[in-house]
Amino acid sequence: VDGAPTDPAGPLPAAAGTLGEFALIARYFTRPTAERQGIGDDCALIDVGDSTLAISSDMLLEGVHFLPGADPHALGHKALAVNLSDLAAAGAQPRCFLLDLALPRADESWLAAFSRGLFELAARHGCTLVGGDTTRTPQGAGGAGPITIAITILGSVDRASYRGRAGARPGDDIWVSGQLGEAALGLALRRGELTLPPAARAACLERMDRPQARVALGRALAGRASAMIDVSDGLLGDLAHILERSYRADDGSAPLGRGALGATLFWAQLPRAGFFDPLPPALQQRCVLAGGDDYELAVTAPPQWRAELAALRCEGAGLTRIGRVEAAPGIRVHAGHEGAGAELALALQSFDHFRSS
Amino acid sequence: VDGAPTDPAGPLPAAAGTLGEFALIARYFTRPTAERQGIGDDCALIDVGDSTLAISSDMLLEGVHFLPGADPHALGHKALAVNLSDLAAAGAQPRCFLLDLALPRADESWLAAFSRGLFELAARHGCTLVGGDTTRTPQGAGGAGPITIAITILGSVDRASYRGRAGARPGDDIWVSGQLGEAALGLALRRGELTLPPAARAACLERMDRPQARVALGRALAGRASAMIDVSDGLLGDLAHILERSYRADDGSAPLGRGALGATLFWAQLPRAGFFDPLPPALQQRCVLAGGDDYELAVTAPPQWRAELAALRCEGAGLTRIGRVEAAPGIRVHAGHEGAGAELALALQSFDHFRSS
Repeated sequence: VDGAPTDPAGPLPAAAGTLGEFALIARYFTRPTAERQGIGDDCALIDVGDSTLAISSDMLLEGVHFLPGADPHALGHKALAVNLSDLAAAGAQPRCFLLDLALPRADESWLAAFSRGLFELAARHGCTLVGGDTTRTPQGAGGAGPITIAITILGSVDRASYRGRAGARPGDDIWVSGQLGEAALGLALRRGELTLPPAARAACLERMDRPQARVALGRALAGRASAMIDVSDGLLGDLAHILERSYRADDGSAPLGRGALGATLFWAQLPRAGFFDPLPPALQQRCVLAGGDDYELAVTAPPQWRAELAALRCEGAGLTRIGRVEAAPGIRVHAGHEGAGAELALALQSFDHFRSS
Repeated sequence: VDGAPTDPAGPLPAAAGTLGEFALIARYFTRPTAERQGIGDDCALIDVGDSTLAISSDMLLEGVHFLPGADPHALGHKALAVNLSDLAAAGAQPRCFLLDLALPRADESWLAAFSRGLFELAARHGCTLVGGDTTRTPQGAGGAGPITIAITILGSVDRASYRGRAGARPGDDIWVSGQLGEAALGLALRRGELTLPPAARAACLERMDRPQARVALGRALAGRASAMIDVSDGLLGDLAHILERSYRADDGSAPLGRGALGATLFWAQLPRAGFFDPLPPALQQRCVLAGGDDYELAVTAPPQWRAELAALRCEGAGLTRIGRVEAAPGIRVHAGHEGAGAELALALQSFDHFRSS
């Protein structure tokens, strides 16, 4: 396959004997592009006249991203929320979306609930459905194919303040919005792997089923953040995307090929709900550091913005400072607060659909 | 479900006892929109500054839109071609696209061939891949879920000359590009329902596997056509979409609710390959009038453009005049040329994924 990657960090190598999702994308679907921003950020940016659009597409499959029998109202919400979250990470103002929907049958009560969940969230963000496609899933010997929901979303961005994932620099603070780990804990609860008091259980399931995209926060951060990403696959993995894409010489003489900045995080500062405290440390770490589906924002910013970012609140969510970007590669997690505590030993990996476990 | 339809023709009623695909879309996914053009045309139109973008999304599923084991190079071509065809019907210049891909496994030879088919066609149209999502299909007891390909495509349109599906008027000529029916015949051949000489067989399979979107023709027609649609579900069904959406008083006092203009087509003038001649008339009619997957353009235009449209050729494809728009509802097909021949008795219906047969 010909074609050079556009990402200054180069394509990610496949893990030995496997082909990870991100490597797969880089290897077969990265091409030179005249568009301003290509594959690799949460959104692609395209310039239209004097304006700039951010575009993103995400697909949800029954049995992969949601459990069979999932509440259709929650599903309608979540399918749009994960796309809104990509716009949030671009600091974009949502504008419109397209919906591709494959269903085993035209079940009217399912459709009514799904579309209500979808349109309620769309209305809150002023985001209009403008097109798409519906089709029946194939009916095979093993039953009907999975419900499949693909949404493409478009928003407006201010080109001058857009940073994407590539702007982090050693010395930057690392911030995260809201609280981490509840969606992953919700999945463990639904799988019956543990029990929690009713209120905590309800909070986790709600976070898993109806994530809140940090759209207003993302827009407020444009111009302050040096890099932003939404935490969809787990904090460590998503932060690693920032650190990989931000790896380049400060003078712009980008050393092509794989490389990464590093980071140190402070475990005691990572924002999580109080009901995490009595849980086994390994489970806490798995959920908070590597749990997917949080749809919070992970942000890097120069220390000059520290006071302003600490005071920022949008739609009930604020930011917590959790670490700093460093020149040395790798992500280290210290057990205590900043400047205290030994390094935690971690064996975590973010969720990757095609990586064999 | 609340919300009024934006389509002046109103939502289509569900067929008795069934819920057709188009009715389903109209019923649950039609909402008022501030965008310039909503659901109902091949593309949605959105204004960005002084420019206008056309956007469309189409989804292909293994076992529904293509057979299991389909050639991945052809599949990469076709997945993009069906989306380019939507831009063609909007008279748009292709710009970029997003790809959502669900696969049972990361099969490198499949990916290499698929991406080659995709990018070869993309390069021919100057259309860049800018984003998307890949995921693994669920692995259930009945095997892996179907390969699913959802593409969203964006193009530029000239707002002043855009017509969509709603501009046809009684007295307009009806035109179609290229030749009809070969893709449907290709499907019948692949299913073993008939045999044809090798050259004819190869031509049909090629049309089925690698449709050519009429992008240049669509752009050349902007400003001449009164309405355009791409023939993806069969000529009669797609022409009916034009006739339904174009139903309104000429003075703009649109009578809300269902209604349609009508048309007369001339069977002898419908362009098809010579190898159709010896086939049973019912099979010819099924393929030419109701066969899906042709991806030709069906066009209405005032008779003043007749000479110019007859002479138009773009990338090897021209237009054939096949009928006229009339005020009386219904589509009639006359057996001969214009002005000659009795009416054919037809019992045909376009492909509709959710309509029970």
